[in-house]
Amino acid sequence: MIAPLAISLGDPAGIGPEITAKAWAARTLHALPPFFAVGDIRSLAAVSNVPLIRIDSPEQAVDAFGDGLPVVSVPDSADITPGTPDSDGARCALDSLELAVGLARSGAAGALVTGPVSKSQLYAIGFRHPGQTEFVAERCGVASENAVMMLAGPTLRVVPITTHVALSAVSSLLSVELVAARARATARGLTRNFGIEHPRLALAGFNPHAGEAGAMGCEEIDILEPAVAILRDEGIDIIGPLPADTMFHPRARARFDAALCCYHDQALVPLKTLHFDEGVNITLGLPIVRTSPDHGTAFPIAGRNAAEAGAMIAAVRMAASAAERRARSSQ
Amino acid sequence: MIAPLAISLGDPAGIGPEITAKAWAARTLHALPPFFAVGDIRSLAAVSNVPLIRIDSPEQAVDAFGDGLPVVSVPDSADITPGTPDSDGARCALDSLELAVGLARSGAAGALVTGPVSKSQLYAIGFRHPGQTEFVAERCGVASENAVMMLAGPTLRVVPITTHVALSAVSSLLSVELVAARARATARGLTRNFGIEHPRLALAGFNPHAGEAGAMGCEEIDILEPAVAILRDEGIDIIGPLPADTMFHPRARARFDAALCCYHDQALVPLKTLHFDEGVNITLGLPIVRTSPDHGTAFPIAGRNAAEAGAMIAAVRMAASAAERRARSSQ
Repeated sequence: MIAPLAISLGDPAGIGPEITAKAWAARTLHALPPFFAVGDIRSLAAVSNVPLIRIDSPEQAVDAFGDGLPVVSVPDSADITPGTPDSDGARCALDSLELAVGLARSGAAGALVTGPVSKSQLYAIGFRHPGQTEFVAERCGVASENAVMMLAGPTLRVVPITTHVALSAVSSLLSVELVAARARATARGLTRNFGIEHPRLALAGFNPHAGEAGAMGCEEIDILEPAVAILRDEGIDIIGPLPADTMFHPRARARFDAALCCYHDQALVPLKTLHFDEGVNITLGLPIVRTSPDHGTAFPIAGRNAAEAGAMIAAVRMAASAAERRARSSQ
Repeated sequence: MIAPLAISLGDPAGIGPEITAKAWAARTLHALPPFFAVGDIRSLAAVSNVPLIRIDSPEQAVDAFGDGLPVVSVPDSADITPGTPDSDGARCALDSLELAVGLARSGAAGALVTGPVSKSQLYAIGFRHPGQTEFVAERCGVASENAVMMLAGPTLRVVPITTHVALSAVSSLLSVELVAARARATARGLTRNFGIEHPRLALAGFNPHAGEAGAMGCEEIDILEPAVAILRDEGIDIIGPLPADTMFHPRARARFDAALCCYHDQALVPLKTLHFDEGVNITLGLPIVRTSPDHGTAFPIAGRNAAEAGAMIAAVRMAASAAERRARSSQ
């Protein structure tokens, strides 16, 4: 039995509180394990009628979970208006994340699920990390280049080798070392978090038709093929570079457990095309399990009871499953 | 009633003959209009048991179609071995294409459907065009930049603004003029071929999150946004540039009739992820209707009765529908 999971609510004015309350309401239907929210209890009361139970420490969540959503309340110092973010809310989101990470690191929480934050609001209050992933990695003592973002849906897992950079910068950022490091972290992460003993990886080409032997770009010849050769020598099961456009239909997806993609949209377009409402972001390479619904704060629909909780529910399920697997394998 | 459609069989050693024979066999199930094959009749006999009826001119196809697949035979000067292409086969493919284009231009064929060819085999015999599309455009007297490739499946249509070029070259190839020209051709083509009176276009951003106001690349600000402004002034209904990763899930696709994409994989990844076995390539901007199944020669599976005919059947249906629509609107 793992400890209850911690869900940081993210920005109190976003949809994080609503989807967390909805996940609690759907706990029986989806067989969710006990979890508790970390954030301002008022942000939940403002958008949901589910019973809220204020707790002081995570272990109280197990008993409380059947009767209401347990909350470790982190006060927002101002009033909360769903859909209207402000700097007090950004501070509350950051305090909630900090506390939830600490509880997961200490083992008091079995895993960490992070609700959506507003990067621009966080940057405005002096947040120095590109995103929550890098913040969590730092608090866990892991160099950010070793914390790898995987996006996972029911029929596809993708790992972008580069992420939030201009597309024209990607070619110069790709290297044999970077591709190999991401592939190794992905293979390890598939075993550790998903229980796949012999992970099968597929690497997407950078250019159309994977460059057609150099006729349309040389990144495959110069970077991707040498990386694949090194990885195979190490015993990693990896195919590619493959033409990206024929990698993601159902028969093609059956050939691999995760696709390594050269850039953001190459990974995110197929994932969100197939699994828009159920995509989970899981960070590989951390000592703790950390997942997140793969969407943003959605301020325009916050407070309208219009948010889809599927991705949050999937994030909780994936976090629990990974935490249980890690607990078993460390026994 | 439109004239029978011409299907050029493509490379005689590829899967073109097999999928054409399978399309004929499925003519009743899919309510296909009369069509005839243009290519070596032996390439059909080698891979199929459907009755073949040699015809001398397209009008004979209408009567013959119920009893067998009508064929205007274009001899390959050597033996044909499915799966083993050679230069004689490439010449046969080119002769077949040339004849079929001529029949479509003269009106003897109601539309042109082209089977898959091997570009490398064609280049080896001196073919000077990038692909069949540009050859057909030239024969129709249309500048190749005005012949626009659209890929269409049951729930998504995409137009790549740039096609078979290295990804690192795309940024310098994009221009306000090119984007605007492609958008205009797309809007016209949607009305002319698909009967959509007020076409709704969506333009994909080039960078992750469509650049986030310049934080991750400037192509949106420098090229895509000015192009959209010009197009809107002309009365074209276009939205964007949109983040590409959230454009292609079902609710997002409902907002537009065609997506304009900056590069090959941005268009082809979502299309083939969703509609791998039923994607049709339709060339907009030609005086004739031309479609093609959106796949290659598949030499490794040729002659094994393993080819999926769905895309060829969809190409025939789309060609017939577009030709009927044009015939009605020109009356």
